[in-house]
Amino acid sequence: MSSANHLRVGFIGSGFARRVQLPALAFVPGAKATAIASGHRANADAAAREFGLAHVFTDGTDLARSPDVDLVVVSSTPDSHARYAIAALEAGKHVLCEKPMALDGFEAAQMVTASEQHPDRLAWIDHELRYEPNRRRARELIRSNAIGEVRHIELSLKPYLRGDGRPQASDAPWNWWFDAARGGGILGAVGSHLIDLCRFWTGSEITYVAGLVETFVTQRRDETGTMRPVTADDFASCVLQTGSGAVATMTLSTVAHHGPGHLGQVTGSEGTLVLTGETKLELGKAGGPLEDISAPDDLWEKTKPNNMWARSFVRLMREMVQVIGGAMPQGEPATFRDGWQVQRVLDAIRGGRGVQLD
Amino acid sequence: MSSANHLRVGFIGSGFARRVQLPALAFVPGAKATAIASGHRANADAAAREFGLAHVFTDGTDLARSPDVDLVVVSSTPDSHARYAIAALEAGKHVLCEKPMALDGFEAAQMVTASEQHPDRLAWIDHELRYEPNRRRARELIRSNAIGEVRHIELSLKPYLRGDGRPQASDAPWNWWFDAARGGGILGAVGSHLIDLCRFWTGSEITYVAGLVETFVTQRRDETGTMRPVTADDFASCVLQTGSGAVATMTLSTVAHHGPGHLGQVTGSEGTLVLTGETKLELGKAGGPLEDISAPDDLWEKTKPNNMWARSFVRLMREMVQVIGGAMPQGEPATFRDGWQVQRVLDAIRGGRGVQLD
Amino acid sequence: MSSANHLRVGFIGSGFARRVQLPALAFVPGAKATAIASGHRANADAAAREFGLAHVFTDGTDLARSPDVDLVVVSSTPDSHARYAIAALEAGKHVLCEKPMALDGFEAAQMVTASEQHPDRLAWIDHELRYEPNRRRARELIRSNAIGEVRHIELSLKPYLRGDGRPQASDAPWNWWFDAARGGGILGAVGSHLIDLCRFWTGSEITYVAGLVETFVTQRRDETGTMRPVTADDFASCVLQTGSGAVATMTLSTVAHHGPGHLGQVTGSEGTLVLTGETKLELGKAGGPLEDISAPDDLWEKTKPNNMWARSFVRLMREMVQVIGGAMPQGEPATFRDGWQVQRVLDAIRGGRGVQLD
Amino acid sequence: MSSANHLRVGFIGSGFARRVQLPALAFVPGAKATAIASGHRANADAAAREFGLAHVFTDGTDLARSPDVDLVVVSSTPDSHARYAIAALEAGKHVLCEKPMALDGFEAAQMVTASEQHPDRLAWIDHELRYEPNRRRARELIRSNAIGEVRHIELSLKPYLRGDGRPQASDAPWNWWFDAARGGGILGAVGSHLIDLCRFWTGSEITYVAGLVETFVTQRRDETGTMRPVTADDFASCVLQTGSGAVATMTLSTVAHHGPGHLGQVTGSEGTLVLTGETKLELGKAGGPLEDISAPDDLWEKTKPNNMWARSFVRLMREMVQVIGGAMPQGEPATFRDGWQVQRVLDAIRGGRGVQLD
Repeated sequence: MSSANHLRVGFIGSGFARRVQLPALAFVPGAKATAIASGHRANADAAAREFGLAHVFTDGTDLARSPDVDLVVVSSTPDSHARYAIAALEAGKHVLCEKPMALDGFEAAQMVTASEQHPDRLAWIDHELRYEPNRRRARELIRSNAIGEVRHIELSLKPYLRGDGRPQASDAPWNWWFDAARGGGILGAVGSHLIDLCRFWTGSEITYVAGLVETFVTQRRDETGTMRPVTADDFASCVLQTGSGAVATMTLSTVAHHGPGHLGQVTGSEGTLVLTGETKLELGKAGGPLEDISAPDDLWEKTKPNNMWARSFVRLMREMVQVIGGAMPQGEPATFRDGWQVQRVLDAIRGGRGVQLD
Repeated sequence: MSSANHLRVGFIGSGFARRVQLPALAFVPGAKATAIASGHRANADAAAREFGLAHVFTDGTDLARSPDVDLVVVSSTPDSHARYAIAALEAGKHVLCEKPMALDGFEAAQMVTASEQHPDRLAWIDHELRYEPNRRRARELIRSNAIGEVRHIELSLKPYLRGDGRPQASDAPWNWWFDAARGGGILGAVGSHLIDLCRFWTGSEITYVAGLVETFVTQRRDETGTMRPVTADDFASCVLQTGSGAVATMTLSTVAHHGPGHLGQVTGSEGTLVLTGETKLELGKAGGPLEDISAPDDLWEKTKPNNMWARSFVRLMREMVQVIGGAMPQGEPATFRDGWQVQRVLDAIRGGRGVQLD
Repeated sequence: MSSANHLRVGFIGSGFARRVQLPALAFVPGAKATAIASGHRANADAAAREFGLAHVFTDGTDLARSPDVDLVVVSSTPDSHARYAIAALEAGKHVLCEKPMALDGFEAAQMVTASEQHPDRLAWIDHELRYEPNRRRARELIRSNAIGEVRHIELSLKPYLRGDGRPQASDAPWNWWFDAARGGGILGAVGSHLIDLCRFWTGSEITYVAGLVETFVTQRRDETGTMRPVTADDFASCVLQTGSGAVATMTLSTVAHHGPGHLGQVTGSEGTLVLTGETKLELGKAGGPLEDISAPDDLWEKTKPNNMWARSFVRLMREMVQVIGGAMPQGEPATFRDGWQVQRVLDAIRGGRGVQLD
Repeated sequence: MSSANHLRVGFIGSGFARRVQLPALAFVPGAKATAIASGHRANADAAAREFGLAHVFTDGTDLARSPDVDLVVVSSTPDSHARYAIAALEAGKHVLCEKPMALDGFEAAQMVTASEQHPDRLAWIDHELRYEPNRRRARELIRSNAIGEVRHIELSLKPYLRGDGRPQASDAPWNWWFDAARGGGILGAVGSHLIDLCRFWTGSEITYVAGLVETFVTQRRDETGTMRPVTADDFASCVLQTGSGAVATMTLSTVAHHGPGHLGQVTGSEGTLVLTGETKLELGKAGGPLEDISAPDDLWEKTKPNNMWARSFVRLMREMVQVIGGAMPQGEPATFRDGWQVQRVLDAIRGGRGVQLD
C-alpha cells in the first residue's frame, strides 16, 4: 500500500466511474483515487483533472499493472471485464469488477480461476445492493426467520433509471449499452443485481430458469444522428427457482413509461417483506398489517447522485478498504464466484427455451 | 324459451352458483332461475328454497336435459365441466361454463366439438372480466391505439380472495380446490382469466410459454379435521408471449399474506395502462403522468358480494340473455374456442420445462 | 350392411387409396369397395373404372353420408381427416382414418369426441404396423417378458420409401406432402407410426418429449415445373420417454441417400429384439447371440405393392370387418384415442424446445 | 526436454494409463515414460515396475510439478482433471487430458484459462478419434465437399466396450465410473468423443441441445460385494444441431446386450458416409451404391489392446511429440478450448429439459 497508508485506487472506464464512483471515494476513508484509464484519452484526462488523478492510461491493462495502483475498479464495458480483471489479479492487485461480470459463463469462470490463483487478493463484484441498508436488513430478517421459509420473491424495475440517475428512456441515444457484443442490455445491467439478491436473501443457488429477453426498440440513433441496430435486450422477464424451493419472478423494462421504479416482495410462510423504491422496507406478519421498518441511510443526500447505488457503493468500498487492511468483513460481499453463479443464470435466461405453441 | 318470455336458467353446482350467480340473476332482466343440481342433495335443496327454484337434481346431466331449462350454467368442479357442458349442448341448451374450462386441452377440444355441432346454441366461458368496465375500457383503448403497440403486460394477484369474497388464506381448509384431479389450483382458477385477458387485450394468441406452478402448502386439514395432501398448485408464475410480440408476466399466489390484490400494467410504445385492485384504471402517455380514467360501475354495491366478479357476471348474463334473444353482442364474450386457447396455455405452463442448472 | 352381407367400403382420396388400399380389398373377405371420392373428379373416375366402383363423389362429405357405404376409409390429405371422419361418424358409419390422424391435437380431440358420441361405430386409425407379423410378435414377446423390462427403443427410417413403394428422393416433385398446411411431412407420415409402436410395445404413454424437425430441401418443383416452397419437415429426430421409464430415440429422414430402411432395436433388461427392414426379427438373450425369429407373412407377394404396409393393411381390414361383424378383435387396433395420444406427441416434438447455446 | 532428446512423459492415473497409454508409448518415437502417480501406491508401483518408470508419486500434483516430466498425461478420474491439468500448466508442462475434460463447464473454463496463460505449452484433450484413419478421412472428404452440405449425423454405440477392450456389461462391478461425483457415466466417457466428432466433421459449434441421460441399473456391487448406488448415467440420447444447420442424433448405451458397436452415418446433400465398427468406412454418392473406402491402419495388431482407441492414441501422441518439438500439426488436435465446447454440450444435455406431457 502507498505511503500515508492510503489504498491507491485506479479506475478503468470513464463513464460510471466518473459520475458515481470517483465522487463516492470522497466518503471512503483510507482510499485515494490515483489513476484512470479510458480508451478515449480526452475522457480520461477530463476525469483526471476533475479528481486530481496523477496517472492517466489509454489502455486498462496498463493501469492494471501500474505500480501506482493497489485496487483496480473495473468499470469499463462488460466485454473488457475479463481481460482487465485477470490482468489486475495477475499483477497482484485487488479487483472490484462492475456487473455484469462478463459476457458469459466462460469468461466468468476464467475470472474465477484468476481470483483463485491469487487467494490473497480480493476479487469482488460490485453488487452494492448487498450494502444497501434495507436489502441488507431484509437478509438479516430472513436469516433470523422473521418471515419463516421463503416461498416467493417478486422483483421488478420499471421504468429504468441508470445507476447515475440518468433516465434510460425509449428515446435514449444508441451507445454500447444497446450492443450485445459489448455486454449491453437490461438483463446484465440490472438482472444480475436482482439474481444476486435472490441468492443473497435465500442463501441458495438458482437451479431452475425459464423466461426470455426481448428487444422492443430495434434501432436507435447514436449521438451523431446515425441510426444503429439494437442487439441487446431492453426487456427481460423470467421465473427462477432456488435449491431451497423459493420461486422468484423478475421483470425488467427499459421501455416502460410508468411504474414505481424498484419494487420487491418476499413472501415467506410467516410473513412478508416489501421493498418500494430505493429506500422503503415494510414487514408484515401473517394476518397483520405491513409496518414500515425502513433502515435509515446515513449517507442520504451526501453522495452525488443521491441514489442507493452511489450510497451503497460507498459502503461497499469502505468494507473493501477495511478488509484489504486486514479486517473481517462486516457484510457479505459478492465474490467472483458469486458473480459466476449469477452469470450462468443470465446465460440460461438468454438460451433456455420454453414451449412454442403452433 | 319459457312462457312469459323468460329465459329459464339452471345451475349445476351449489357453491359459487349459490353465493354469486343466483343472487346476480336478480339483476338480469329476462332471465329466471328454475333449477339447480348438486351431488349433495341437501345443498341443492337449500339453494332451491332460498331462491325459489322449482326443480332440484342430484345429477347435473339430468338438469342438462331438463325441459325446464334453456340455459345451463356449469358451476360444478372443473372435472365435471366437459361432461355437463357437452350433455347440455346435446340436449339443445345454451351453456355458460365456469373456468377453468376443463382438466386439459383434450376435454376442452371435446367441448369445442360439441359447441360446433350446435352452432345455434351459445357456448360461452364465464370469463366475466371481459365485462368488467375497466378491463373492457382497456381493451377499447388498446384497439384505438391509445398506448401504441402493446409491448409488455404484467398481471399479478396476491393475496388471493375467492370470487365470492372469502379469503383463501394459507390455513384455508382442504376442499376440492386443493385437488388437482378435481381441477383445483390457482392457475386454473385465476390464471385462466388472466391468460384470457392477455388474448382479449392484444387480440393475439399465446405462442410461447415458460414458467412453473408450485405447491407450497403440501397438506391441509379438511372440515372434519383430517389432514389431506394438496395436489393442486397454490402458486403459479409464468412468462408468455403472444403472436403479436407482446410479453406477459403473470404471478399468482394464494400463500401471500400481503399485497394489493389484483395489479396489472400494460406498457405500450406510446403509453401505459395501470389497473389497481378491481376498480381503478389509469392511463399515462409517454412522458406524461398517470391519470385516473376509471370507468364507473353502475352495479356498485348492488350485487352481493359487491366485487368485480359478481358485477361483471351480471353484465355477462345480461349480454347472454340479449344474444339468445337475437341481439348482436355488445361486448366480446369468450366462446368455447377461446376457452380452449386458454386451456392449452394452462397445459403448457404445467408441462413445459425450463433449464435445470446442476 | 349391404345385401349379400358384404361390408360396403368407401374411400375418400384417390392416391394411397387407389395404389394400396383398393387393391388390398381383394384380400378382405366380406368387404366390397363401393364408392370413391376425390376433389379431382378425373382421379375418382379413373379409380372407379379400375375397381368397378358404382359411386363417385367429388366431396368426401357426400361419400361419408352416402347410403351405399358402411365403412369410410379416410385417405385424403391430413388437413381434411377431421372433417370427413367426423361427418362419417355422425352419419353412422364406421371409420378407418389414415395417419397422421389430424393437423394437431385439437382436431384429434374433436375426432375422439365424435367417436365417443358413436360408441357402436368403429373409429380406428390405420396404424397397420400393429398388424405386421414381426412387430406384433415383438409386442407379444415383450408382454410375455421375453426381454425383461424395456429400457430403450431405437427406431430409424432412412431412406424413406412412401407406403406405395415409390421413392421419396431429394428430388421428388412438390406435392401436398411438402405442405405443412395440408398435413405433410415425414414426422406425421412415419413418425406417427413409430410413436404408436413405442406405445404399443411398452403399453405405456409418452410423458417426455425432446427433439426437432427440420426442412433441408426448402423448395421443390411441382409437376408443372414451378418452384414451390417446402413448409413441411423432411427430417425429424427426437428422444421420448414413456411413463414406464423406457427411452425411445427416433430418426426419420427423407433426404438420406443410403440406409437400411427401417431399423429398430428394443433393449430390455434381459434381452434384445432387432427389427431389420420390413420382414426380419431377431431375438437375443443377454449374453447370447441374436437369433432369427422372423414371423412369416402369409400375404407375401400377394399384395401389390408387396410391402409391409399393404400386407398389414389387409390384415387390419380383415380384423375390422370381423369386428364390425360382431367378433372380438384378435389384435390391438389403434383407436381414435390412440391416435390422439400420438398426435399430442407430434405436437410436442414440433413445439417443444431444447436449450440454445450462444 | 530431457537428455537424449526424449520427451519425458508422466502419467497421472494407473487405470487407462497402465492398460492402454503406457504400452502405446512404445510406438511413439522421441517419447519416454518417466513417472506415474496414483492415489493407490501399490498400483503406481506395479505400473512403474512393469514399464520401468523411475518416479512414482501418490499425488498427481507432485507429478505435475516434477522436474523429471515434460508432458503430463492426465488419466485420473475426471473430478481431478482440472486440478492436475492446471497444476501441470502452471508448472510449465505440456498437458494431454483425458475426456471427459472436467465435471462441468466451469472447471473446463478454468482449464482453458490456465492453458491461455501458458500459450507456449500444449494443452490438448485426448480426443484420439480425430487421429483414427477413417474418421479423419471422413473429415477430409466432408471438407472437400465429397458429400455436399452435411445435413444429418447419426452416431450410436451399443453395446459399450471400454477403451481398454473390457466389456462394460450390465453386471460390471461398481467403480468410480458409476459415480457422477467422480465424473463417471457414458455421456462423459463416450458422448464427449462423439460430440467432438460432430464439431470436427462439420467445423461448426453445437447451438441446440435436447435429450436426456438415464440410469437404468440403479445399484451395482463393488469388488468387495457391497451394493452401491449408481449415480452416473448408463444411457444417453440426444438431438443436437450445429450452427451450420446439421442435426446430430446420438445414442449411447452401456446396458444394451446386442448391437454393432460403433455405428455412424453422415448424410450430406450429395452423398453419404457410413462408419461401421472401428475400421470400416463407406462412401456413397446420391443414387449410387455405398463403396468401401476404409483407410488402412498401419498400427493394426501392433498395439495392445488392438482397438482404435489405442492405435489412435499412438498417432495423437506422435503428433504431440512432433509439435512439442517444433513441427506444425499434421492433424487437428482437440485443444482445451475444444474440450470446453464439448463440455458445455454435456452440461446442456444433462440440464436441458424437453416437454412433459401429463
